[in-house]
Amino acid sequence: MGRLNINNINPHVRAAEYAVRGELAVKSEELRAQLSKGDAGLPFDHVISANIGNPQQLDQKPITFFRQVLSLLENPQLLDKEDVLINGLGYKTDVIERAKFLLKHCGSVGAYSASSGVYAIKESIAKFLERRDGFPADPSKIYLSAGASSGVNTLLHILAESPKSGVLVPIPQYPLYTATLSVLNATCVPYYLDEHKAWGTDLEAIRSSHEKAKSEGVDVRCIVIINPGNPTGASLSEADVRAVIDFASQEQLVIMADEVYQTNVFIGQFHSFKGVLRKMQQENPGKYDDVELASLHSVSKGMVGECGHRGGYFELVGFDAEVEAAIYKFVSIMLCAPVIGQCLVELMVNPPRPGDPSFELYDKEYNGIANGLRERANALHKAFAQMEGVECGEPQGSMYLFPTITLPQRAKDAAAAEGRKPDEFYCMRLLEATGVCVVPGSGFGQKEGTLHFRTTFLAPGTEWVSRITKFHQEFMDKYR
Amino acid sequence: MGRLNINNINPHVRAAEYAVRGELAVKSEELRAQLSKGDAGLPFDHVISANIGNPQQLDQKPITFFRQVLSLLENPQLLDKEDVLINGLGYKTDVIERAKFLLKHCGSVGAYSASSGVYAIKESIAKFLERRDGFPADPSKIYLSAGASSGVNTLLHILAESPKSGVLVPIPQYPLYTATLSVLNATCVPYYLDEHKAWGTDLEAIRSSHEKAKSEGVDVRCIVIINPGNPTGASLSEADVRAVIDFASQEQLVIMADEVYQTNVFIGQFHSFKGVLRKMQQENPGKYDDVELASLHSVSKGMVGECGHRGGYFELVGFDAEVEAAIYKFVSIMLCAPVIGQCLVELMVNPPRPGDPSFELYDKEYNGIANGLRERANALHKAFAQMEGVECGEPQGSMYLFPTITLPQRAKDAAAAEGRKPDEFYCMRLLEATGVCVVPGSGFGQKEGTLHFRTTFLAPGTEWVSRITKFHQEFMDKYR
Repeated sequence: MGRLNINNINPHVRAAEYAVRGELAVKSEELRAQLSKGDAGLPFDHVISANIGNPQQLDQKPITFFRQVLSLLENPQLLDKEDVLINGLGYKTDVIERAKFLLKHCGSVGAYSASSGVYAIKESIAKFLERRDGFPADPSKIYLSAGASSGVNTLLHILAESPKSGVLVPIPQYPLYTATLSVLNATCVPYYLDEHKAWGTDLEAIRSSHEKAKSEGVDVRCIVIINPGNPTGASLSEADVRAVIDFASQEQLVIMADEVYQTNVFIGQFHSFKGVLRKMQQENPGKYDDVELASLHSVSKGMVGECGHRGGYFELVGFDAEVEAAIYKFVSIMLCAPVIGQCLVELMVNPPRPGDPSFELYDKEYNGIANGLRERANALHKAFAQMEGVECGEPQGSMYLFPTITLPQRAKDAAAAEGRKPDEFYCMRLLEATGVCVVPGSGFGQKEGTLHFRTTFLAPGTEWVSRITKFHQEFMDKYR
Repeated sequence: MGRLNINNINPHVRAAEYAVRGELAVKSEELRAQLSKGDAGLPFDHVISANIGNPQQLDQKPITFFRQVLSLLENPQLLDKEDVLINGLGYKTDVIERAKFLLKHCGSVGAYSASSGVYAIKESIAKFLERRDGFPADPSKIYLSAGASSGVNTLLHILAESPKSGVLVPIPQYPLYTATLSVLNATCVPYYLDEHKAWGTDLEAIRSSHEKAKSEGVDVRCIVIINPGNPTGASLSEADVRAVIDFASQEQLVIMADEVYQTNVFIGQFHSFKGVLRKMQQENPGKYDDVELASLHSVSKGMVGECGHRGGYFELVGFDAEVEAAIYKFVSIMLCAPVIGQCLVELMVNPPRPGDPSFELYDKEYNGIANGLRERANALHKAFAQMEGVECGEPQGSMYLFPTITLPQRAKDAAAAEGRKPDEFYCMRLLEATGVCVVPGSGFGQKEGTLHFRTTFLAPGTEWVSRITKFHQEFMDKYR
């Protein structure tokens, strides 16, 4: 017997749940391994990982400009052969210029950068934010991170003063939030999104969750907003964003705005918390000056889809200088975000512009990806509309659909007999029958008595969608 | 007034100390910025960052084979132009083959991998461990991480059951350990290394620290060993490694072996904990079967020096299956280690071999770096030997020297008047006078009444060494 067992490790790690890579994901990898060994006993010939927003695992090709620049950063010796690059490989001059610019400021992508990131990259991000929002941004308030996840981890670490420290988290939510709060032994204060209003924020629901938590002695200090939503896809109106900021200001809540899907918007437009806050500050001098906002972005989503590079950043607004110093110290302990990922952030926020040699191809690739995502979202939505007991709002944004499923009582009984929640049972049967891996709604949280699943719409083609509809019909027939 | 201030954030983050990127490092960056603006008022014309083992920030060039492969992983379209790669750019066929192998197994470096890393890369690591140690290794027990730091963070998270959970940490140590234990609110149980035995482990010191902690109610559950040492450079003998394993076995302590400097050894040879443990298990059937060992490695150090890529791994031996599952879940929350960094780990553990087209250049570059490090270490050591009140053992390994300094009482008084520790005072004056940034011994821990500083020997040339000796003489003259 060694020292460690499941009952004496960190109980907060033990308690954390992270369904996106949970039992179903593990099972899907086993099935994939079985298939690759030539196992012919399965009723499908490949596994579709619709459980995770991982575009390049499926169909999405990286954007050429980005990867050409990265190839030069990885091998700067190529810059000695400009002629071969241009005439032999078709690299454009803006690719070469950008690589030189980034190398000048990183030194080498193999060197640690400053703890909060390469300063010139933070300047590029600030310029992007200025263009996006129409208000100035300060590079020194920007922190590069290893994907947005690492930024969330940093910010929640700072916020978690004691087990009574509470963070308002939307339900359904991306389970990074609940899992990290669990590890930190802080309090998750759930507030429900309104499925009947296209999964928008419901200020009354937020207010009552907040009141209830306060009455229970919770020191609620932050509200998390995921916009566009994960898993819901909801894209908030400016009015919704304003209402949240106003509430946070009244109640002295730090706003954590997870905006990693900001370019994945199909209906309406994206309203950044930073931009709306600055407008409110301009309209109401003095009133919103003490709002604390951290907004996060990433190279993993959008049309970039570079999850594996673990690039991201967060911007702080209104934070106390000593708190910022503590954030800086905290990120220093892990040294720095991956430098090649930092460079990819720079490329994302500062892509080729009209007239630049690489613009035409960039624009074509970018729009091709955007259109592909929209088409697939609509095709999937249409399929769901025809499935018995399945209801799903129109695709609005992000990379997911999150339909409600109504299952027969006999299916619920069969799930209980297996010790599973009904939505887990449904998703497990779906995986076994079709090779399509989705995540049960219980992994994100859902209102008592409702059932959902989350699926990405990243997988190419429609064949896998018909696998789902066929399975669903058979499942309903069996348990009706 | 916003919600957060330094007195209501997470007190454990507030308490953490990380001197490697502390006040001196911040000051050195300010000086560098001053110089780049053309400030002529300073007594030096460039800053030398000898405070951090960041080889490529200084002189070290990346190894060509590694970077050629990475350039193809970043831009796989280049693989369609093999002729240009070979004839135009001088890429060898083994570069192209390796890139194809890695792409086959990653899909894209822009896709998330499995949470614990790309399986084929884990297989390569296992083969490397088998060659290194002469014993089998199991790929499924290997976890890719974002540098070794992230692996240490994971393992300490698992170990920290309560504030009474104790971890034996060598003093002096790399402050990642104390900082992370502070953030986790667990107990650091310091044990002193023996400066008079070339900073080796002193089993009596370990035993008495352990006993003392136990008598104070600490649940000591792990011992950290950094071999070769940081900041000390010590390279442990096989006998020392055996003694630690035997002690850990008797006391049921998990062994965390930080072996990131395993190729930076000048005197004697590196003895891995895994290899020695397997030998002891073979020699004493049954006796050491329940030893739990986690050993860590990284692409950041050695002759690779690719800190910015944040690549690393840890291997588990003897861990309970449910504990491993908790580790897997924990790393899943952050999704995966940077994939291009994972690929670099593969290249490090599986470099070109004699007869391979890229071998000759690889071998030349590798040995050039190794010899350069050795020469600089010796030059620095020689300089220290001539400095008044400075004592420093022969360079043994890692990238650091950690001399003792004996300062006059008047210097200590001047430090106290500034509210600084004497070694901090000395290092601050050194930085201001010479632009050379080192880290005071107090940042790593040192025996009461002793003073040290840590310097890397990565900076090229010897001019900066003479800046130090000149400063030292003047400092001693002033305060004698």
